[in-house]
Amino acid sequence: MNQNRYDQLGVSASKTEVHQAIKGLDKGLYPEAFCKVLAHISGAKSELCSVIHADTAGTKTVLAYMLWKETGDLSVWEDLAQDAMVMNLDDLACIGLVDQILVSSTIGRNKHLIPSEVLKSIIHGNQKLIDTLSQFGINVHYGGGETADVGDVVRTIDVGITAYGEIEKQKLIIPRIQPGDVIVGLASFGQASYEQKYNSGIGSNGLTAARHDLLAKEYSNRFPESVSPETSKDAIYNGRFHFSDIVGNYNIGQWLLSPTRTYLPVLKKILDEVDRQKISALIHCTGGGQTKVKKFAHGVKIIKDNLFESPVFELLASETNYEKKELYEIFNMGHRMELYCKPELANDIVSFANEFSIDARIIGYVEANAHEHCSISIKSKYGSFLYD
Amino acid sequence: MNQNRYDQLGVSASKTEVHQAIKGLDKGLYPEAFCKVLAHISGAKSELCSVIHADTAGTKTVLAYMLWKETGDLSVWEDLAQDAMVMNLDDLACIGLVDQILVSSTIGRNKHLIPSEVLKSIIHGNQKLIDTLSQFGINVHYGGGETADVGDVVRTIDVGITAYGEIEKQKLIIPRIQPGDVIVGLASFGQASYEQKYNSGIGSNGLTAARHDLLAKEYSNRFPESVSPETSKDAIYNGRFHFSDIVGNYNIGQWLLSPTRTYLPVLKKILDEVDRQKISALIHCTGGGQTKVKKFAHGVKIIKDNLFESPVFELLASETNYEKKELYEIFNMGHRMELYCKPELANDIVSFANEFSIDARIIGYVEANAHEHCSISIKSKYGSFLYD
Repeated sequence: MNQNRYDQLGVSASKTEVHQAIKGLDKGLYPEAFCKVLAHISGAKSELCSVIHADTAGTKTVLAYMLWKETGDLSVWEDLAQDAMVMNLDDLACIGLVDQILVSSTIGRNKHLIPSEVLKSIIHGNQKLIDTLSQFGINVHYGGGETADVGDVVRTIDVGITAYGEIEKQKLIIPRIQPGDVIVGLASFGQASYEQKYNSGIGSNGLTAARHDLLAKEYSNRFPESVSPETSKDAIYNGRFHFSDIVGNYNIGQWLLSPTRTYLPVLKKILDEVDRQKISALIHCTGGGQTKVKKFAHGVKIIKDNLFESPVFELLASETNYEKKELYEIFNMGHRMELYCKPELANDIVSFANEFSIDARIIGYVEANAHEHCSISIKSKYGSFLYD
Repeated sequence: MNQNRYDQLGVSASKTEVHQAIKGLDKGLYPEAFCKVLAHISGAKSELCSVIHADTAGTKTVLAYMLWKETGDLSVWEDLAQDAMVMNLDDLACIGLVDQILVSSTIGRNKHLIPSEVLKSIIHGNQKLIDTLSQFGINVHYGGGETADVGDVVRTIDVGITAYGEIEKQKLIIPRIQPGDVIVGLASFGQASYEQKYNSGIGSNGLTAARHDLLAKEYSNRFPESVSPETSKDAIYNGRFHFSDIVGNYNIGQWLLSPTRTYLPVLKKILDEVDRQKISALIHCTGGGQTKVKKFAHGVKIIKDNLFESPVFELLASETNYEKKELYEIFNMGHRMELYCKPELANDIVSFANEFSIDARIIGYVEANAHEHCSISIKSKYGSFLYD
């Protein structure tokens, strides 16, 4: 039933079809790595690896477009730029790569609807994040990009980033999650010391679901350009809110459009200070949410029984029609970054996160499994769910 | 009037707005270079530079979609993959970078309309081109990519590539076009020795114009998903053809969907064999067509008086409503790669191209200009045009 709902919206959390299409492709030097790792491209040094990585802001651009049209506030595009960038940077961090990263942007726009001010705001947003990161000794370089006028392809605007970086083999973090590991989660919400405002923590995943389940039917008439016409009219904009509606301390626009937090300042600190050997894995809980780790572990049972509770996901849990079990596959539900490590490391990691005003705690642990595969058990106030 | 036509379609050949938006951004180590060149990302060797470069297949995806729907032939997607890849590879070749290139793909699809077979064909197309290039000692590595289900953003499918490469500073080709240089053009049409079939040479630029001016109104009803609804109904599909209509030896589908030819095998040969110092510039005639060089030259007058004549552009000239002058700004019109060089090099370059069954000849020359800027004078059977 839920699967149908997501299918109806033309999205899949499992990406089965995509994985099928890329089956058989070379998986790089370390097939288990969070990102594909290749031998250094020009062979400059044999111990160096090359990594190229791509991601987009997905359908969060649609929300940015609608909120910008409703309020005239261009700054939503700066946040959106951060979404696309962080989806790449924080993935790269998961292999241990947290410095000297080259980024390129690809923007496709419908010129009828998106004027050059929007492009300027996006580019400004990229630069703002680069400047923020540089304060923490994290060097990100902007290598240019492509902006195409493709209204016959793109309804409003599509914003992607591709990132390139290099790392020494010995510094790579390749997942080897083991029984006895604990899981430290870094909260996705709150206000980090390097953020200018409260962050709902929604990130860049599940936004098609969130948009159609929170926003009111009225938006389908006001913004027909925000929806695939192939999606059933009944399935779109089934919520009860408008962007300006206040829930708790913020309005719906703020809940939905908080920019994806980067964990790079914290992760750089951790990787600089602790023994990388004691970290079993870094997992960025993006597509697949709290079950993302399933692809990077074997023969273990992962128990998550102390998850964060966070207002935006409480809201989504109460306002959407997804089964509670599925929510954890669509959204990050409270932490978007998790570290698998030896128990003795947990306190330090929590302290480092707290230094940046980011909440962190042990959210679970790892046991041996009876099977070859990885099972995930989530115990939360919504119930107990097994992903097997 | 013509400008209006292109504007109506939501496309601009000059990309004024885009250039405005990115004004003020750092231009890299060599602001004159064809691609943005940066210091080597990890500083592995001080004489190495890093380049990251992005481009997409633009609205050619829409044509691929329509032809695939009409014929059921999945192979159109393999060709389309080549379009996106070559738009990057041949740009990189213009700075002298023709080997050890890492590519990443970003595909956004409307899952309602694009099944996984299409994704498979695109990935297969990427691999086919990589295999072909490897036969010429050109190593291109596939670094993975992102495929997103974003039907609320993308009408059908968007296909982009980002490429990364490294090059020694002393091997870089930085444009320094001088009076006395001749221009050797490498034909975009015909059948190169490494191509499996005749190539119309249309490339990946001007396809919004070509599609709407060649294809018949009927397509607007059959494929509403192929057009921005913000474009006036009068402006779309104003041609008189169907894909299966034969013109000359090929049908309209073949004329429009020939994959963008890569010049890499020829260019690698040239760069390996000749003294790079004698090459003043390599210009990939993409957006801006035969006037692309304007951005890369100063104080010179570029005379192009011996251009190729090629059937697909004859067809476009006779079937579209653009002024003839503008055609040279929208399409490549017969050669998509041009080398500015000392006259004594021209014969060798022509011979190297011919070795690969690619037609080549001196298409023009360079004179001093009375002004600081670069003027282009085109003399063809359609008349004489000055781009000043």
